[in-house]
Amino acid sequence: MKKTKSYSSRILRKIKRRKLFDYSYEQPASIPGTLNISQDAIFPNIALIDYDSTQANLITNLSPEACGDHLYTDSVSWFDIGGLGNEDFWQRIGSVFGLHPLILEDIVNVPQRPKIENYQDQLIIITKMVLPNLDGGGFCLEQVSFVVGQKYLLTVQEGSDRDCFEPIRQRIQFNKGNIRIKGTDYLAYALWDAIIDGFFPLLEIYSEKIEELENEVLFNPTNSTLAKIYQTKRELLALRRAVWTQRNALNVLVRDKSPLITDETIIYLRDCYDHAVQIIDIIETYRELTSSLTDIYLSAVSNKMNEVMKLLTVVSSIFIPLTFVAGIYGMNFNPEASPWNMPELNWYWGYPFFWVMMGIISTSMIYFFWKKGWFSNITPPNQRH
Amino acid sequence: MKKTKSYSSRILRKIKRRKLFDYSYEQPASIPGTLNISQDAIFPNIALIDYDSTQANLITNLSPEACGDHLYTDSVSWFDIGGLGNEDFWQRIGSVFGLHPLILEDIVNVPQRPKIENYQDQLIIITKMVLPNLDGGGFCLEQVSFVVGQKYLLTVQEGSDRDCFEPIRQRIQFNKGNIRIKGTDYLAYALWDAIIDGFFPLLEIYSEKIEELENEVLFNPTNSTLAKIYQTKRELLALRRAVWTQRNALNVLVRDKSPLITDETIIYLRDCYDHAVQIIDIIETYRELTSSLTDIYLSAVSNKMNEVMKLLTVVSSIFIPLTFVAGIYGMNFNPEASPWNMPELNWYWGYPFFWVMMGIISTSMIYFFWKKGWFSNITPPNQRH
Amino acid sequence: MKKTKSYSSRILRKIKRRKLFDYSYEQPASIPGTLNISQDAIFPNIALIDYDSTQANLITNLSPEACGDHLYTDSVSWFDIGGLGNEDFWQRIGSVFGLHPLILEDIVNVPQRPKIENYQDQLIIITKMVLPNLDGGGFCLEQVSFVVGQKYLLTVQEGSDRDCFEPIRQRIQFNKGNIRIKGTDYLAYALWDAIIDGFFPLLEIYSEKIEELENEVLFNPTNSTLAKIYQTKRELLALRRAVWTQRNALNVLVRDKSPLITDETIIYLRDCYDHAVQIIDIIETYRELTSSLTDIYLSAVSNKMNEVMKLLTVVSSIFIPLTFVAGIYGMNFNPEASPWNMPELNWYWGYPFFWVMMGIISTSMIYFFWKKGWFSNITPPNQRH
Amino acid sequence: MKKTKSYSSRILRKIKRRKLFDYSYEQPASIPGTLNISQDAIFPNIALIDYDSTQANLITNLSPEACGDHLYTDSVSWFDIGGLGNEDFWQRIGSVFGLHPLILEDIVNVPQRPKIENYQDQLIIITKMVLPNLDGGGFCLEQVSFVVGQKYLLTVQEGSDRDCFEPIRQRIQFNKGNIRIKGTDYLAYALWDAIIDGFFPLLEIYSEKIEELENEVLFNPTNSTLAKIYQTKRELLALRRAVWTQRNALNVLVRDKSPLITDETIIYLRDCYDHAVQIIDIIETYRELTSSLTDIYLSAVSNKMNEVMKLLTVVSSIFIPLTFVAGIYGMNFNPEASPWNMPELNWYWGYPFFWVMMGIISTSMIYFFWKKGWFSNITPPNQRH
Amino acid sequence: MKKTKSYSSRILRKIKRRKLFDYSYEQPASIPGTLNISQDAIFPNIALIDYDSTQANLITNLSPEACGDHLYTDSVSWFDIGGLGNEDFWQRIGSVFGLHPLILEDIVNVPQRPKIENYQDQLIIITKMVLPNLDGGGFCLEQVSFVVGQKYLLTVQEGSDRDCFEPIRQRIQFNKGNIRIKGTDYLAYALWDAIIDGFFPLLEIYSEKIEELENEVLFNPTNSTLAKIYQTKRELLALRRAVWTQRNALNVLVRDKSPLITDETIIYLRDCYDHAVQIIDIIETYRELTSSLTDIYLSAVSNKMNEVMKLLTVVSSIFIPLTFVAGIYGMNFNPEASPWNMPELNWYWGYPFFWVMMGIISTSMIYFFWKKGWFSNITPPNQRH
Repeated sequence: MKKTKSYSSRILRKIKRRKLFDYSYEQPASIPGTLNISQDAIFPNIALIDYDSTQANLITNLSPEACGDHLYTDSVSWFDIGGLGNEDFWQRIGSVFGLHPLILEDIVNVPQRPKIENYQDQLIIITKMVLPNLDGGGFCLEQVSFVVGQKYLLTVQEGSDRDCFEPIRQRIQFNKGNIRIKGTDYLAYALWDAIIDGFFPLLEIYSEKIEELENEVLFNPTNSTLAKIYQTKRELLALRRAVWTQRNALNVLVRDKSPLITDETIIYLRDCYDHAVQIIDIIETYRELTSSLTDIYLSAVSNKMNEVMKLLTVVSSIFIPLTFVAGIYGMNFNPEASPWNMPELNWYWGYPFFWVMMGIISTSMIYFFWKKGWFSNITPPNQRH
Repeated sequence: MKKTKSYSSRILRKIKRRKLFDYSYEQPASIPGTLNISQDAIFPNIALIDYDSTQANLITNLSPEACGDHLYTDSVSWFDIGGLGNEDFWQRIGSVFGLHPLILEDIVNVPQRPKIENYQDQLIIITKMVLPNLDGGGFCLEQVSFVVGQKYLLTVQEGSDRDCFEPIRQRIQFNKGNIRIKGTDYLAYALWDAIIDGFFPLLEIYSEKIEELENEVLFNPTNSTLAKIYQTKRELLALRRAVWTQRNALNVLVRDKSPLITDETIIYLRDCYDHAVQIIDIIETYRELTSSLTDIYLSAVSNKMNEVMKLLTVVSSIFIPLTFVAGIYGMNFNPEASPWNMPELNWYWGYPFFWVMMGIISTSMIYFFWKKGWFSNITPPNQRH
Repeated sequence: MKKTKSYSSRILRKIKRRKLFDYSYEQPASIPGTLNISQDAIFPNIALIDYDSTQANLITNLSPEACGDHLYTDSVSWFDIGGLGNEDFWQRIGSVFGLHPLILEDIVNVPQRPKIENYQDQLIIITKMVLPNLDGGGFCLEQVSFVVGQKYLLTVQEGSDRDCFEPIRQRIQFNKGNIRIKGTDYLAYALWDAIIDGFFPLLEIYSEKIEELENEVLFNPTNSTLAKIYQTKRELLALRRAVWTQRNALNVLVRDKSPLITDETIIYLRDCYDHAVQIIDIIETYRELTSSLTDIYLSAVSNKMNEVMKLLTVVSSIFIPLTFVAGIYGMNFNPEASPWNMPELNWYWGYPFFWVMMGIISTSMIYFFWKKGWFSNITPPNQRH
Repeated sequence: MKKTKSYSSRILRKIKRRKLFDYSYEQPASIPGTLNISQDAIFPNIALIDYDSTQANLITNLSPEACGDHLYTDSVSWFDIGGLGNEDFWQRIGSVFGLHPLILEDIVNVPQRPKIENYQDQLIIITKMVLPNLDGGGFCLEQVSFVVGQKYLLTVQEGSDRDCFEPIRQRIQFNKGNIRIKGTDYLAYALWDAIIDGFFPLLEIYSEKIEELENEVLFNPTNSTLAKIYQTKRELLALRRAVWTQRNALNVLVRDKSPLITDETIIYLRDCYDHAVQIIDIIETYRELTSSLTDIYLSAVSNKMNEVMKLLTVVSSIFIPLTFVAGIYGMNFNPEASPWNMPELNWYWGYPFFWVMMGIISTSMIYFFWKKGWFSNITPPNQRH
Repeated sequence: MKKTKSYSSRILRKIKRRKLFDYSYEQPASIPGTLNISQDAIFPNIALIDYDSTQANLITNLSPEACGDHLYTDSVSWFDIGGLGNEDFWQRIGSVFGLHPLILEDIVNVPQRPKIENYQDQLIIITKMVLPNLDGGGFCLEQVSFVVGQKYLLTVQEGSDRDCFEPIRQRIQFNKGNIRIKGTDYLAYALWDAIIDGFFPLLEIYSEKIEELENEVLFNPTNSTLAKIYQTKRELLALRRAVWTQRNALNVLVRDKSPLITDETIIYLRDCYDHAVQIIDIIETYRELTSSLTDIYLSAVSNKMNEVMKLLTVVSSIFIPLTFVAGIYGMNFNPEASPWNMPELNWYWGYPFFWVMMGIISTSMIYFFWKKGWFSNITPPNQRH
């Protein structure tokens, strides 16, 4: 039941670039329901898992028309479409499943804002799945759309190679838990719950990132630290938006009961809603912490400048007066013209006396700075804890 | 169906200047319904598109009285007025269409706050259309007012040369989509949707602007960077206000169903509302990012000052002590007066010994600064990544 | 119909000083309804304008008791009291108009928070009128109280020489618009609308002030700039409070229909409410802009310090090493004691060689700073754009 | 009707220290209703004022049991308890007045959060009275609890020597206003109104404090200025909490009418609610102003540093080059070894020429700095306005 | 009735590490109700206290099945489970008590967000208990779950060695207060009240911490001060989240009355709700204060830098001109070549005159700085108050 790994790198790049402006929009003033499919979209596969309490069958590569045979059977039919194909394909899907043009638009013109829409005998759910980038850094968000019918569930994913539904497929195949004896609403819950819970591992990564940033800011701030904090802020902002909108959609679903959702499933959905609230809670905490880190960074920079200035002041304050005194005894007043002209130069102990004076001046200066507690701070910042 | 390009530059200038204070107000305590038309307003043209499912006719340059013949026919009549004309014109329009004086005031005294007003058999919608400036930088906001009647729609635009309705005119003319078989409410939706979707391309421009600012702030902050950030903030503030008020108006329309709006159109309007929410969402994200950029800029300035101070400190700390030592051996203590007076000056290796001492002092200073990690940072900021 | 210009300068001073703490309060635990009239209050004049659709009469200097004759006639009677007089006067007014002691307190103990109160057959409206100061800078807020009855309207102003009602008086006198054929509720609306619209010209002044501050902050920040920003913030805060509370009062009036207000007037009041919302909108935008200006000012100060430090660093870095070298050749090592002792002093090209060395050192320093891009910034800030 | 002045200084100190953590809490998991009386609490006095429209009697030093005789008489009985006594006392009070253990706890375990509680035939009001400290600086907050019954009112104060009820006692004693012909609800209103209005004089003090801080920050910021701003912020925070909670309690009382409160008194309570809203309004404004002051202080510090740096830069930039030139002519190149070696030293006009050069260098430096506008700022900050 | 002290240090470490990311989550897409028990969980003990008005029995180390005998007896049965055991144990508990799998999940997969859930004949309460760390610094939060039935109460704690319920156990055992004559709802209230009140002593600790920080920031800021402020902020954030969610749960319970809670207990729960509100109030105040402390810290750092710069400027401004003058008289212009060449060197009073000049220059400089008020500030910051 694995999906093929043919994820085009062009899509990946598009998804990465989508960070700041991540909404789809048609040409303004175009006909409502216009599908806006990028040239490099993957041709979609339809995979059907058809199950009831006694059996579960997997059929891949169905044609849209072949789906029609399974829609109104007694068994639960889960159609999973991966990839956003071409327009002709979606028009065929639309007529087989009886989708309103605006629904098709929401499904195909990704990304849309997560939401719930009630159409006569269908419930439309737009969600956002988080997938960590394969190369380690960051994450990408993919839209997953649900069309919940009486006996069928249609899910549409942007990409075709990765999703977080594998454990659910296995629970159906190997009959784990009681998923097989429940209806399409429970299946939709199970999938959405998997999507929401998929944010938790990401949060753990950010937890570690923030702790690293705390250490860096407090003990070893560099020029790039603030850029890292900013990057983290930006990513948390994107995450929050993704979860917040899903939380709202879940809330609508739990409150305004749809005829397609049984009361039993509502209990499960409330649990799912709780998880979304927890995630938002944590993200908010992280955002407050990153904001505080900016303040600390600024003060760390000031502290460093303070140390630089102290060093300069100490060096200057000690040596500038000494240089002045040395400058005096370099003057060429003629001692022969008058007994008042620099008689020190001819004293027997003149030069030793000069050194004693130097010593007194510099020692008292150092004592003054030590008294002010300046030396305690002039330590390399990267060796301080 | 093109509109004439006679946009007076005086208007353009007025619209540009309107950035900060962009509301119209009458002389306080004037009679309600007083029209406040600027001297340089364009004389208005009335263009009528009269269509039903079988045909579509365009009539231009109607007189206000001629409009009356088309108001209660079975076909949909879309009167589009461009330019804010003179008072006589509007009084005639008002009596033909039966407009309340306060409506006329809202239409003519631009700009007003976008809103919905229900009058007996008319629905008034005040919206704001965004038009990118022709010379490239920034944008301007123009008011578009709708009067929705049973079989007619009156739209009033501030200017007469540009709008975002051209695709709709073509959909009507060439019978694309199903716009011809729907009523005035659908036409009003289609136009408003075009106005709302017109904000998306602008957002994409701001997305790029913010990414440029991020690069500039992090890698090459100059004195003008903050002015640019401030300008962006100001423009986002204006955009948000324009969309926010329209979102509220849409919400009122979707919630408190007007008898002039069919249930089917409500579905489309909800889609339009979703788009407005998305736009506000993105603008809010952009505003948070620009706020963070200000913090980063401040810290970048501090970092630069830090480097300046470090350079000064390094130079001073090395050369001031050296200069002091050189000053000592420039003193004129008389070596003949006493064997204690500067005997070094007569040593055989005196001068070479002086240089060795200089070398030791400066090397240990440099080692000290290298140990503190200062040199790693003293690089030209515009060559750092 | 002009009012006399006898505004006492004592009052003016009191109003100016009232900026920060601008609420009236009685002695704690005093009897409710206690009137708290300052010694220098102006003795009040009562001016009556009595009108119906056919005629309008102005009677000035009525005694409180004389008012009673006009209260229940069929014509609309507008009693306008200017000045807060003495306690005896108000007790007489109270008994003629049948005012609750708490109403009298709200009218006389200015300034109160704007609000709406419904008493059996009277509607009390407390508003705040803005008046620009005669000497140009700033503005002052004056309370105007309305008592709306079936056939009469009582307005009470703090001062007696200036208000924004003159155009309304003329509309009544010269029968402009349809004010004469409407009732007291319309008159109250017209007056309140004049008060609200009176804020618009002030906003235009602040719009210009903020643009000036923007220029000053970005191109020529001085020590007094921040004080100006702070002053603007404070005044906007006061303005917002004045309009915000009136907006709330208007909202209550439009929502909870009073029997004294006809449905037709409600339409006009909604228009007035819209204006209040617009004003608050603009003030909020201004406040956000002034907040941003503070950030920019701080960074401008940092930038200026940066330039100062750069100049110091450039001068020091060039001349301190040169001085050191000059110091070396001022040393008195005895060349006769050893051939190693400063043989340069006796070289033929010694002094020219010294100058070549100076030239090389200073040129390479200048090249280093030019490479870092420091010189581009060291320009007088007031000549930069 | 004065109260004795035996306020123990121990209590005073306790109240002063209570600034940051000012809530009472029992030992966690103790029995609900446990009384938590500090050892140094003052032994309570019960003072009864029993009045109807014809007479008013004052009885002091009642025993708790003696109170029972006055509870259900036709006259209004106001029992005023000052001091928080001992547990036995309160158990006796509790049984005489029929108080729920949780009420007793709220009354005795001060300070509690102000609130309203409805028990069958009693209304409990917890309020906070502000008392300026006798030694001038700051204020303290004391809890006053009300138990409103049909014909009696019980008030409990923390301390016994000072309150703000004296004018009310005199209004009852000397039959001023109409307090004697009203019921217990009006008495409770009158007392609470006195408590709320007691905040106004304090606000006036803070108004002056903030104006002083404004002057200090703008014209003469010192190291202690920020500590003063912080202290003011902290006190405003405490004040706001005290009034905010009472505002909420008043709102509940006005909205959810209690059978013990007549409709007439509701009108008076609404007036009292208005005052609370005004106070919060002013406090919020003050808090915004103090926040702005912090920004201004930071920029004033930067400005001062700027001036320090400018002075250093001016002095260094002028004298360091001059010193370098003087250093050159102090070199000992041997003029006899070569005609190129410092021939200037033997020129006839050498020394005067040196001074001319010095003059040119320093004058051009000074002109440069004057052109940059630096000198205009280097003035003692405490002499600038 | 003490619990054993076998708290594994592994658990302690886990709880400490849980600061930033403190929510439990299952493997995404796992079967709902999956129990997620860490390997080092303590094997749970069941302690039963069975009481009615006449007696109270304690039974320890029950097996899950043995609990079944006590569930439906007339006496109140409080089962207290300490430790999160193994999965088999919880499946047995689940079947004996008839718990929904999602309830079991909430109880076992700690920590969950505090909440209330109503299941048919059970009320589920998830709470968070605060326990100060035994080694003094900080605190840890432990989940306590309640299952309230008709005649039984099940509580589940994370750890087994410490809780805040000891006083309640004693009130039952020694029949203090009236706990024995009330039902399970009162017991649940008493326990939850103990949990909420357990936050108060912690707040007192933070009150002291903040006062220490205030002193440190204002009088002796060091590099580590900001780290301490940040740490405090972070802990207050965690506390607020713990109490806030419990406040919401209490609010739901008080508002939406459950059949398992009597009206009398609602009164007590409202008291408990009040305490939660108080705690949040205080935490919010503390958070505002810590935010202000950051500002003050930044300004203290600036002030310190200011002092450093002043010292440098004073020293430089005095000695650099003096050194210049000394440098002049160290020049070697040949007095024999011209009478204009440095005749001062041969003056009789040349050298004394030089010293007089030095004295005048330095005295006027010092006077200048004293006039600017610089010396008043150059005092060791740690000796200033």
